[in-house]
Amino acid sequence: MNKIGLHNAYWLDTEMVDAGVYKWMELAKQANCEVMEIGTAEIVAMTNAERLEFKKAVADAGMILTINDGFTKDDDIAAEDPAVRRRGIERAKRILQAMYELGADRWSGINYSEWLRHPEVATCTPDFKAHVRDLSLESMREIIKTAEDCGVDYCFEVVNRFEQFLLNTAAEGVQFCEDLGSPRAKLLLDTFHMNIEEDNIADAIKFAQSKGRLGHIHVGESNRRVPGFEGKTNMDWDAIMGAVKESGYEGYIIMEPFMKMGATTICCWRDMSHGADIATMVGYAKDGAAFLRSKLA
Amino acid sequence: MNKIGLHNAYWLDTEMVDAGVYKWMELAKQANCEVMEIGTAEIVAMTNAERLEFKKAVADAGMILTINDGFTKDDDIAAEDPAVRRRGIERAKRILQAMYELGADRWSGINYSEWLRHPEVATCTPDFKAHVRDLSLESMREIIKTAEDCGVDYCFEVVNRFEQFLLNTAAEGVQFCEDLGSPRAKLLLDTFHMNIEEDNIADAIKFAQSKGRLGHIHVGESNRRVPGFEGKTNMDWDAIMGAVKESGYEGYIIMEPFMKMGATTICCWRDMSHGADIATMVGYAKDGAAFLRSKLA
Repeated sequence: MNKIGLHNAYWLDTEMVDAGVYKWMELAKQANCEVMEIGTAEIVAMTNAERLEFKKAVADAGMILTINDGFTKDDDIAAEDPAVRRRGIERAKRILQAMYELGADRWSGINYSEWLRHPEVATCTPDFKAHVRDLSLESMREIIKTAEDCGVDYCFEVVNRFEQFLLNTAAEGVQFCEDLGSPRAKLLLDTFHMNIEEDNIADAIKFAQSKGRLGHIHVGESNRRVPGFEGKTNMDWDAIMGAVKESGYEGYIIMEPFMKMGATTICCWRDMSHGADIATMVGYAKDGAAFLRSKLA
Repeated sequence: MNKIGLHNAYWLDTEMVDAGVYKWMELAKQANCEVMEIGTAEIVAMTNAERLEFKKAVADAGMILTINDGFTKDDDIAAEDPAVRRRGIERAKRILQAMYELGADRWSGINYSEWLRHPEVATCTPDFKAHVRDLSLESMREIIKTAEDCGVDYCFEVVNRFEQFLLNTAAEGVQFCEDLGSPRAKLLLDTFHMNIEEDNIADAIKFAQSKGRLGHIHVGESNRRVPGFEGKTNMDWDAIMGAVKESGYEGYIIMEPFMKMGATTICCWRDMSHGADIATMVGYAKDGAAFLRSKLA
């Protein structure tokens, strides 16, 4: 059965937001998760000794570490300015090297451009989109060599239209991977985003996997609650998890729920946790992991 | 059975975008729709004589006219600046008066604040949201009197988190209507937005109607294609249309599909129409109307 994970962004707008990698690991483990997913900042900032120690701690806990993060306006590898692209390329290499040292083999995110980038034109034309996509591909041709050398699956996150404009569907993502041409070029598909963009979520999962490009999966309810939260859902989890099984995808399934009001980049404008404290939040995630496993059984 | 309509925004990024109210009416009628929905600019700009003529043409065609539009940064009735709020209030009154003269009795949209407004704070707190909501309510207390006098249902559009932060769920919308207290305070619920925000779309429809606040419905696929497009969908249309029937909602159901790449405010970054020409687009809308009626039968 696929291993289930928890993204540390779950702790945004809680007192655990800056608790650090060891605490996040403990919380993921408490939620009966086998994978912990974190951003890039912490692992890049670590010294060699700290990485070695953390790698050992993850192994000792019987956990798996995955990385999720993307670029900003300052280091967008698809920016017009070559200096900005260069910063992104060099940052990508540092991240991949840190992952190699930690034994983390999956980096997903908007790691092909800038998160929340909006086209800088009044009307978005196919030519403009192709131009930005080409800039990204050009940078990726350099970065992907490092990913290959570091043994990292570089998973482009396919996201909804409000967060990026280059890759909104599995079909666009697969084409991007094929144009790049590396076996390490993969996709992250996320139920929240697919629920907005795909004609059919199960078909998208099966399509990406059939093309050998499904590298990572994120899950959450349509409004980003924990999967199966209180039994209310617009998601057809039987069809979604059925597609995961049927397609032969054996990778990780990471919960990335956002239940707290606050961070304006996430756009969650209400508390969806019923004012839950940390213990209750852990319980929600534990229930979510059990729910997913019941659908995979 | 509920009357089905077509929003003229369907023609965005086509050669019909500026075709004018008579052409839009003709296209809606060709698509077997009984209601045409347009923005506010055209009706406010009309002279008395033009309004009289258009009103007659709509009646002669056996059509119904509804209005959908909201405020901008320059006339946000929930802005901090009282002068901006005043511009919005006066614009709302002009729109309502034009609607009265045209015999249009339903105005929906982000007519309670600014479309695409993002909180002007790093972290969105309940206090900040309540403050902006109070500014809107204060303006609405003046506007709603004109709506009552003009016989217009003022339908607040509940939208997804990326387009506004005040009213993301039917529950928030109903509370806003109740706080305002007028029988003309209603909601527009849209399947595209509900699919992102609600725990369950059918429950949201039934809840709003049970509170007497469901004034208008917009429909589209989860990715804004025409309802039922090519038989592929993530939407449970049986449940959604079942809720419409069961709840006793007898109002209009307006298709607001976006199938063309272009307008950056709409965030549709790919052509979803297979390069359709106008006749094919009309055919899609006709199929959509037939699909909806089959679910309502």
